[in-house]
Amino acid sequence: MIIVMEPDATEEQIQKVAEKMESYDFKLIFNRGDVMTVIAAIGDKRLVEPQSIASYEGVREVKLIQEPFKMASRESKRTDSIIDLGRGVKIGNGQRPVIMAGPCSVEDDKEGFLRVAHAVKESGAKILRGGAFKPRTSPYEFQGLEEEGLKYLAQAREETGLLVVTEVMDSADAEMVADYADILQIGARNMQNFKLLKAVGKLDKPVLLKRGPAATIREFLLAAEHIMYAGNSKVILCERGVKGFDSTYTRNTLDLAAVPIIRKYSHLPIIVDPSHATGRRYLVAPMAKAGLIAGAHGVMIEVHHNPDRAYSDGAQSLTIEQYQKVMKEINELIDKFIIPVAKLNV
Amino acid sequence: MIIVMEPDATEEQIQKVAEKMESYDFKLIFNRGDVMTVIAAIGDKRLVEPQSIASYEGVREVKLIQEPFKMASRESKRTDSIIDLGRGVKIGNGQRPVIMAGPCSVEDDKEGFLRVAHAVKESGAKILRGGAFKPRTSPYEFQGLEEEGLKYLAQAREETGLLVVTEVMDSADAEMVADYADILQIGARNMQNFKLLKAVGKLDKPVLLKRGPAATIREFLLAAEHIMYAGNSKVILCERGVKGFDSTYTRNTLDLAAVPIIRKYSHLPIIVDPSHATGRRYLVAPMAKAGLIAGAHGVMIEVHHNPDRAYSDGAQSLTIEQYQKVMKEINELIDKFIIPVAKLNV
Amino acid sequence: MIIVMEPDATEEQIQKVAEKMESYDFKLIFNRGDVMTVIAAIGDKRLVEPQSIASYEGVREVKLIQEPFKMASRESKRTDSIIDLGRGVKIGNGQRPVIMAGPCSVEDDKEGFLRVAHAVKESGAKILRGGAFKPRTSPYEFQGLEEEGLKYLAQAREETGLLVVTEVMDSADAEMVADYADILQIGARNMQNFKLLKAVGKLDKPVLLKRGPAATIREFLLAAEHIMYAGNSKVILCERGVKGFDSTYTRNTLDLAAVPIIRKYSHLPIIVDPSHATGRRYLVAPMAKAGLIAGAHGVMIEVHHNPDRAYSDGAQSLTIEQYQKVMKEINELIDKFIIPVAKLNV
Amino acid sequence: MIIVMEPDATEEQIQKVAEKMESYDFKLIFNRGDVMTVIAAIGDKRLVEPQSIASYEGVREVKLIQEPFKMASRESKRTDSIIDLGRGVKIGNGQRPVIMAGPCSVEDDKEGFLRVAHAVKESGAKILRGGAFKPRTSPYEFQGLEEEGLKYLAQAREETGLLVVTEVMDSADAEMVADYADILQIGARNMQNFKLLKAVGKLDKPVLLKRGPAATIREFLLAAEHIMYAGNSKVILCERGVKGFDSTYTRNTLDLAAVPIIRKYSHLPIIVDPSHATGRRYLVAPMAKAGLIAGAHGVMIEVHHNPDRAYSDGAQSLTIEQYQKVMKEINELIDKFIIPVAKLNV
Repeated sequence: MIIVMEPDATEEQIQKVAEKMESYDFKLIFNRGDVMTVIAAIGDKRLVEPQSIASYEGVREVKLIQEPFKMASRESKRTDSIIDLGRGVKIGNGQRPVIMAGPCSVEDDKEGFLRVAHAVKESGAKILRGGAFKPRTSPYEFQGLEEEGLKYLAQAREETGLLVVTEVMDSADAEMVADYADILQIGARNMQNFKLLKAVGKLDKPVLLKRGPAATIREFLLAAEHIMYAGNSKVILCERGVKGFDSTYTRNTLDLAAVPIIRKYSHLPIIVDPSHATGRRYLVAPMAKAGLIAGAHGVMIEVHHNPDRAYSDGAQSLTIEQYQKVMKEINELIDKFIIPVAKLNV
Repeated sequence: MIIVMEPDATEEQIQKVAEKMESYDFKLIFNRGDVMTVIAAIGDKRLVEPQSIASYEGVREVKLIQEPFKMASRESKRTDSIIDLGRGVKIGNGQRPVIMAGPCSVEDDKEGFLRVAHAVKESGAKILRGGAFKPRTSPYEFQGLEEEGLKYLAQAREETGLLVVTEVMDSADAEMVADYADILQIGARNMQNFKLLKAVGKLDKPVLLKRGPAATIREFLLAAEHIMYAGNSKVILCERGVKGFDSTYTRNTLDLAAVPIIRKYSHLPIIVDPSHATGRRYLVAPMAKAGLIAGAHGVMIEVHHNPDRAYSDGAQSLTIEQYQKVMKEINELIDKFIIPVAKLNV
Repeated sequence: MIIVMEPDATEEQIQKVAEKMESYDFKLIFNRGDVMTVIAAIGDKRLVEPQSIASYEGVREVKLIQEPFKMASRESKRTDSIIDLGRGVKIGNGQRPVIMAGPCSVEDDKEGFLRVAHAVKESGAKILRGGAFKPRTSPYEFQGLEEEGLKYLAQAREETGLLVVTEVMDSADAEMVADYADILQIGARNMQNFKLLKAVGKLDKPVLLKRGPAATIREFLLAAEHIMYAGNSKVILCERGVKGFDSTYTRNTLDLAAVPIIRKYSHLPIIVDPSHATGRRYLVAPMAKAGLIAGAHGVMIEVHHNPDRAYSDGAQSLTIEQYQKVMKEINELIDKFIIPVAKLNV
Repeated sequence: MIIVMEPDATEEQIQKVAEKMESYDFKLIFNRGDVMTVIAAIGDKRLVEPQSIASYEGVREVKLIQEPFKMASRESKRTDSIIDLGRGVKIGNGQRPVIMAGPCSVEDDKEGFLRVAHAVKESGAKILRGGAFKPRTSPYEFQGLEEEGLKYLAQAREETGLLVVTEVMDSADAEMVADYADILQIGARNMQNFKLLKAVGKLDKPVLLKRGPAATIREFLLAAEHIMYAGNSKVILCERGVKGFDSTYTRNTLDLAAVPIIRKYSHLPIIVDPSHATGRRYLVAPMAKAGLIAGAHGVMIEVHHNPDRAYSDGAQSLTIEQYQKVMKEINELIDKFIIPVAKLNV
């Protein structure tokens, strides 16, 4: 931790900070410049919150050296995490990228939903997505079929052999959703719902954690840390776009550089969701492929049997035909380029 | 609703959109320009989600004319809402701005906490703040005293006669917190925790809803709408800063223009929290005063009996002495300028 | 143009707006809803500024239907622009993606610079980049060799047969730079230096226009429109990252979705600059490849013979060896995937 | 400067960085932690660019301790700068806040313009604003009367005794504009047009420097530094809003906390422009007053004799009557609150 004192900090203020740090067994190195004093404090940062030092009179700024996340960090685990999702599907470095696909929400047209599930299966994807609990910006929008939707998902899994990922919105529902799903999804707007992170952290199911629309990469990895700290290390990260200043042509700004950055700073797998990121059908294919080339361990794509009639997010959902065409391109990219290059790097 | 078709949309695509809209009893007006066709649809927007129209092939964009929030809107209620908080304290237009103050979190030094409570009372503030459940970015930080903290708050209320505002973090805790608190706070990171919004919407307690760090004003008012839709119309909004591109000198960017904007578009009262917005002690006084001048119906300020020892957010907390000085300035501004001008406008 | 009136707009205010629009030969359609009146105005938007209508009393908002850029728009020219850069090199749809590479700035070590130029040539790139005039955030940093640097660039071109792209910073220098360069670059921070746009718009040289760090896509295409309006239609766009809220791990947020969006809305070619966007060496290769997969017509990469000694942007510059490795991957991606798929789509 | 090495940096890489720093006479302190090595380098940062150190292999990050601006910094000059604008008007701490007002652009209705000028004079404002050269996002919009407009400004000055502030858009025009104006304005989109900053830095006229829409406070003060470094220390800063993620209700996000932050880190005066920041007439008064309460040394307000007919920015321009009402409130705030409090603090 680097503590920068104000230029007019008094010697007494400097000493007060020093005493506090020493009381936590930090080793201190003082750099007294012409303008200001800087204190380098070496020790276990977990013992003291940077904010609590920043609150001392005479302190201008506290700069972190080490990242505040531990279990999620590359330093704590040098090898990439490979997460076993069940039924022989694994996600992580060195594995074939995993495709998750399905409608935004599970709707009451079960027959249509099952048609999508079969198309997902045939395309080579391994995981079926579909929301039974839907977080919606407006209370006047479709809120999901809840447990009924989970049952449809379970039936689709039985029929197709696909794994199922679906969202948990509230700590109270976590166990019930876990009874049906293979992977528990935490939505972007719940990324810092800490009670919910703790609840899924206590379950023995992989968690797909979506990045919050205003979350820095550090905050994103700290949210993963909450889940790991509660006992569940099977966390898959998902970049799905952040709030940007231009929402005329896309819903969010897909931050693809987050993929190689997270691969450098963390051992956890990361996927990309181009559908929610862009909110536009024609952008799904280019951004899915770009995500995979940038190093994502998977992508999540929305497909609906009838997007015109979708209860949510139809504008970004592909039709089954469009989806099949996109999957052909994606599979070609994986087979012709991504896997051969990956082998080269081994 | 205005539906802009792509320049190359076919007549068939246009008709398909038209049929959908007419099936919802919208009245349609077609504007066929040289380049593209634009359809103006007049009717009850709640019946159809803009996203579901945007999903049709050939649609470029759907533009809203009316705001999607109803109960929170100025159109639904022309007069300003005045919310009765109990013990004779009211918040809203025409009332003396309400000051809420206290430590970020309630900590185990009860005696120190009560000292702050008495200082808050003496300064003329009406409401004591203090978190018993603390959302924390990192799992290694202090998470709050939970119910024990609520008891301290209740004791402070009894001793001082102040009202108490404190955060609910999870739908499961809503009723328990409501047993202790006069006002239920929804934290910024939970602004779109819809299960929680629904839970507090079913209680008969005023709710202080903080703006999410990436929430547009529309999303903010839609979050309020969730609470109102569930049955609770006593919502107080709180601007507390949004994510900006410069976090070198402040934690967030305080968006003060949101105050007069919300006063124009909604009838709900709005306050400003300069402490969380800026994260720096020296910015609290100027931004609190600026918020009040901009039209806020109150401000929320952090004060701690010993910020150096605070478990959270010490850097933005004022000492009791600093707080007293700031309150003197604030009261002077209210008495000398805000109240006289308000009377002028009556 | 859609003009949304305030709910409490008077009939007189509505008429005043209507008269103004009719005086410009707009055809008006009135939609009088329960809450507010909306006027759809059909005609040539260039004749009237939306802002000037927004200024009328009683107007809540003016929404554009057609994009405000004309010459740069897909509507004005359905076929993709292919720009001939000279020496047989063309950029645009259907052409092999063009690689531009070289150091951030041309420095006084001419021998080192020429070594880079030869490496660029051998890698299969077609264009040499290098700044002679350098915009620098701080006045204490290296500002470029100016005309001397241009001479180095000319010599490198002569020796290698590469084309040369370099930045013009001021309208007064435009002609001089054009005497040396094959492509004139407008830097991101000058994207809205309208006098400069006009100056290069009067020259007969292709212009590489970089997106400003806070420019929306609309503003970006309007900047291109300034150049085209002044007479020069040979504009190449360059996405180089925008300001985001997280600058801990990258300098800017590379907005790769801008590539397919611009390809939809404009006929102009677009390239990606992963070096300036990310500011980190290890991010250059993944983001360059992602940009190409997303549909970019080229990429611009920084390479320096000795990044440790670079006068500017060394942290994002590849060494010659790193550059050669990245180019091998890029060429493989182009040959194995991008060109075959492009042929498929023809 | 703090240099953070990668966890896997080799001893050789650490030594290479150390040698470079020592060659610039930096004193080095090594902090070898369990995870990574951190080097604190004490010396004159101007001698070495942080970026050039960040480019070394094995360096993770370079953190600045001292701000990179010097002449603009509070450290270089502890007392606030008071800038003499001529005709007895001074701006800076302890002076009565200076009001600048006038139309966005000087238009051909000279009689109307002079009417505004007289109203500005009568309201107690000291400075007349008006653009003769207009930067416009679209080439189809009014670009200004250029020198003709400067003549109108000069005439208005003669008639009213007001000082005149107007924008310079290009280094080539700087001297000509300086012949007419008392204060040279640098527009937000030219904040990093370094040739222009240098040009006005060589003139002996006060410069009003507007903050760029994506400029951090550090970049803003470095732009001021460019002007000061070229020889002109009479720089007035202007906060006018930054790009935000919500442009539904305002054009930009007015960052009012920038006022007290800049007052802490710099000795230069700072004003607020609520008209350009918000782009909405009804937001001008609350944000002007909020700016003054937050500590601004002045405000700039747009007023037009006929906003409905304005060539630019009518929607944010007040009518003369509205302006008079706003000025009454502003003068009252200054007289009743700001000046008495300032006296108290002396």
